[in-house]
Amino acid sequence: MRRVSIVGIGQVPVKQRHESGLRKLGAAAVRAALADAGIETVDALYAGNMLSDELQGQKHVASLIADEAGLAGIEALEVKAATASGAAALRVGYLTVAGGAAERVVVVGAEKMSDGAPTTALAKSLDAHREVRDGATMLSHNARLMQLYLERYRPPAGALAHFAVNAHHNACANPNALYCNRGLTVERVMASREISPPLRLLDCAPICDGAAAVILAPASEARQYTTGPVDILSSAVATDRFRLADRPEPLRLVAAERSVALALARAGVTAAEIDFFELHDAFTIMSCLALEAAGFARPGEGWRLAVEGEIRREGSIPITTLGGLKARGHPIGASALYQACEAVIQLRDQAGPGQVPGARLAMMQSVGGVAATIITHILGRG
Amino acid sequence: MRRVSIVGIGQVPVKQRHESGLRKLGAAAVRAALADAGIETVDALYAGNMLSDELQGQKHVASLIADEAGLAGIEALEVKAATASGAAALRVGYLTVAGGAAERVVVVGAEKMSDGAPTTALAKSLDAHREVRDGATMLSHNARLMQLYLERYRPPAGALAHFAVNAHHNACANPNALYCNRGLTVERVMASREISPPLRLLDCAPICDGAAAVILAPASEARQYTTGPVDILSSAVATDRFRLADRPEPLRLVAAERSVALALARAGVTAAEIDFFELHDAFTIMSCLALEAAGFARPGEGWRLAVEGEIRREGSIPITTLGGLKARGHPIGASALYQACEAVIQLRDQAGPGQVPGARLAMMQSVGGVAATIITHILGRG
Repeated sequence: MRRVSIVGIGQVPVKQRHESGLRKLGAAAVRAALADAGIETVDALYAGNMLSDELQGQKHVASLIADEAGLAGIEALEVKAATASGAAALRVGYLTVAGGAAERVVVVGAEKMSDGAPTTALAKSLDAHREVRDGATMLSHNARLMQLYLERYRPPAGALAHFAVNAHHNACANPNALYCNRGLTVERVMASREISPPLRLLDCAPICDGAAAVILAPASEARQYTTGPVDILSSAVATDRFRLADRPEPLRLVAAERSVALALARAGVTAAEIDFFELHDAFTIMSCLALEAAGFARPGEGWRLAVEGEIRREGSIPITTLGGLKARGHPIGASALYQACEAVIQLRDQAGPGQVPGARLAMMQSVGGVAATIITHILGRG
Repeated sequence: MRRVSIVGIGQVPVKQRHESGLRKLGAAAVRAALADAGIETVDALYAGNMLSDELQGQKHVASLIADEAGLAGIEALEVKAATASGAAALRVGYLTVAGGAAERVVVVGAEKMSDGAPTTALAKSLDAHREVRDGATMLSHNARLMQLYLERYRPPAGALAHFAVNAHHNACANPNALYCNRGLTVERVMASREISPPLRLLDCAPICDGAAAVILAPASEARQYTTGPVDILSSAVATDRFRLADRPEPLRLVAAERSVALALARAGVTAAEIDFFELHDAFTIMSCLALEAAGFARPGEGWRLAVEGEIRREGSIPITTLGGLKARGHPIGASALYQACEAVIQLRDQAGPGQVPGARLAMMQSVGGVAATIITHILGRG
């Protein structure tokens, strides 16, 4: 397979409520990415979106966004894996260029969560028949994992809250982030209202609107488009038993272990070489479990990296370097594309006050459902 | 890119109402395809489904079906393009094997339409904001195309009904078909109740449940799995202006013209070499327009192929050879996988009384929305 580069990025600022509809948000991100690469069109568009069926009464969004972006005629498909849909689309865009089926592709993620109440639609990530019917939601399942973790490993009070504090501080360097809260403290996270105990409001990523896109091309031609190409060194998807109840050790994210191992092997790098990790911090517990699954901490000790400051930009494994899902925002199907844009900005050395010093190798990850699907990409300076 | 073969097929009989849920239908098709290829597992599963969000309250169906089929761990993603979602999944499975990212892949389509009323969800194929809000549905838009066609080209009364008659006759040779109606006549189609005039009940494919799957592998290894490999010679997706109102000539399926031209060029064959055409006969008018767009008839003359019997198995361009969407049934996200299984059966020379004599080259096509997306595959004997 050919090496693939990201040669253009485009982001719409994340907002709690955008005036524009989904179609226009997606097209704006596509056009911004095209402009960044200095091109007018592409061979194909792959779209990540999760909730348009329910919130906009809209399917067929890849073709719709392609038309709105002035690209009618090109190939356009949606790719989905519940809350990991943006990364799923990136995976297919990568495969298309790597395999030689296309020379230039745009991958766009777009989500407009403000058009209704997304909780019910989000829960469709779980087994409708055997989990949702029994009362489970994404929130209740993540709360259950957090409870199991707190009971089993007994971290100090507020240990997980450090993940939220780090994300909110980092977001201040990101002009596209929803939040910037330099004053956020562990105490304030712990004092926020209980959502689904022990999850509190500030353990959870916010509901918001956004769209982001990247342009992919063969690495051999990347410098036609940009002075700062970033290579996708690998892409890997893995699944776990679908239902949480079917997993012998629910605190082990087996799909994440497998996806990371595949991604590292395919890229030919080790976890120790990763300079920063854009993980899927939809909930503070997920940050902790993802660090453990990726091998950055032993089981039960992921929280130490947060408490000891190792997840900060100057730490040993910086995460959510420009705010993450928690503070940049988590417009579901768009989140992985924001991660990709932010990783590119870091690897281009353009993150300004948010720059991870000397960043050359990035890992990014998306979680579908309660870790039934995990998608990991590794990016490196081109 | 490597040549890709279909080395296993699996079909669940199409029914108006299956007892099993979506998850089990999909897994049954996957297991049947694995058994046909003589293998236990694959590297990845790509799923086509359109309506599970609404009808089952279920997203994340690729991972769910993988788990139910005993394949938890493997890559699993959904691929969508509204009513062409099955073909979209086949496209990605093809790209994955052709590009060298996987050695063995299963593509499964599954749809259970009997769990509710699908009309509203189907209409989400159209522009929610500028078409559905104005009252459009898939039925009303297809009715409009039929009305435009009848007014512009003035075919003899009942000309389009021949497409339904042919499909129903052909389905009798297909043990997985929903219907077999040897006694159907043009007069009975014309006497069926008006649905959305001028569309009558028997102009439309039925609402039903089903699942089908294919196993893909590199052609160079195909004979490890089967004595009758069928190659996917090409795959092509094209789009049109999304809204019907934005198309200068709505009776020209521009995306179909483009998709067919790309598919033929990529396969290195001409339309005249195609032995049969599994087209997307969700409505009789769509069969007619698809034949014209593919170059088998001049604009305004597609109906002649039906009236003159050229679409029959012994005709110049046989279509819907084992019943098509109209009579085998159209469980939306599964339909393209049924087409693929049926094309394989024809190309393996195993269609019994339904055999297209000497079939060596097949074209199959799916229509997303009202032809905003068209996906065409060309298959040939391996």
